[in-house]
Amino acid sequence: MKNRENIPRATIERLPLYYRCLDKMDTFEEVEVVSSKDLGGKLDIPSTQVRKDLSYYGEFGRRGVGYNVNELKRSVGKILGVDRTWEAILVGAGNLGRALVNYGSFAMMGFKITNVFDNDLNKIGNVINTLEVKSIQELPKVVQKNEIKLGVISVPAEAAQEVADEMVDAGVKAIWNFAPTRLYVPDGIEVRNEDLAVGIVSLIYHLSWQEETGE
Amino acid sequence: MKNRENIPRATIERLPLYYRCLDKMDTFEEVEVVSSKDLGGKLDIPSTQVRKDLSYYGEFGRRGVGYNVNELKRSVGKILGVDRTWEAILVGAGNLGRALVNYGSFAMMGFKITNVFDNDLNKIGNVINTLEVKSIQELPKVVQKNEIKLGVISVPAEAAQEVADEMVDAGVKAIWNFAPTRLYVPDGIEVRNEDLAVGIVSLIYHLSWQEETGE
Repeated sequence: MKNRENIPRATIERLPLYYRCLDKMDTFEEVEVVSSKDLGGKLDIPSTQVRKDLSYYGEFGRRGVGYNVNELKRSVGKILGVDRTWEAILVGAGNLGRALVNYGSFAMMGFKITNVFDNDLNKIGNVINTLEVKSIQELPKVVQKNEIKLGVISVPAEAAQEVADEMVDAGVKAIWNFAPTRLYVPDGIEVRNEDLAVGIVSLIYHLSWQEETGE
Repeated sequence: MKNRENIPRATIERLPLYYRCLDKMDTFEEVEVVSSKDLGGKLDIPSTQVRKDLSYYGEFGRRGVGYNVNELKRSVGKILGVDRTWEAILVGAGNLGRALVNYGSFAMMGFKITNVFDNDLNKIGNVINTLEVKSIQELPKVVQKNEIKLGVISVPAEAAQEVADEMVDAGVKAIWNFAPTRLYVPDGIEVRNEDLAVGIVSLIYHLSWQEETGE
């Protein structure tokens, strides 16, 4: 395997797409072998790109034959780290927080929210999908005791930086941020901003173009 | 402007990032001129890529001087179609649906959910941020009367295709799908799948690597 630091971010972001697609083929469609062309075709990714992405991580598949679906799925899953379960805390028990706790497809990705925090007395003590909402003051203790590395932020933008600071102080190493604001974190802490507004704009762009051209 | 069909998808997906960044500089930071290097730097995009992306849409900025922030923001906003308001319907008044209706940053992107539907009698009639949840049976009438082109799906995976079909039949042209399943739609209908599980995997990948290397 090449040094992971030199692998393009775009490649890393395509791995989960490959994984989900392979998992679907393996689990539901009983496909045994797949070519880079077919795998790419299902995801709108050119076959040359599929082969290049996978080549960063080693030799998979056989020229002229294709990839064994189950083997490749397990290999990609291992690269991604989804072959084990990653516990996460979530701060912000509003609608979005509740939606995330209830979101069904995370389990397949090895991701499990095990603790939910809020600072709102009206929310503390409520139960979301078997998890009781705890006071934010309990965060450091819970993170340290369970050695949790992953935190999800679903609080309003103005509260997000403070929550991020508390997470990092407690030992969280990776933050999934749903608050529409940029977070400042020390080196070595990974942040992924999930900016929902970006998604809608690509649709608006297409609608806008359709109206313009009358198509 | 080049034929929009030939513009790479990745370019289109970067436009909203430019727009948000320019809007922030223009509105809050009172920046008047920005170079492609500075704009790219804020977004981790190489300056050559910034210039290439914008060049698809015309001539902006002056060599050696940079872009006028306010002008470029308005130009990009116009390209994206966010200079007007796009009404949308949402189907699925669960936690995620409620979170989306309440999400603050959509307005800036010209996106507004004006009608919410569900088929659950316990949800119909509830009010989410001033909107009363309507029965799904009213969907066709509402879409046609208001000429709504944009639909958001936040129902469970197994119900999503049926909802998509109803939207398309009623006249919706672009679907933002939060259900973790692939939708089949006729040609000319644009779908954007917002697969939340993909986001978490890139974080898990980094954590997994950190543990492996002990960094």
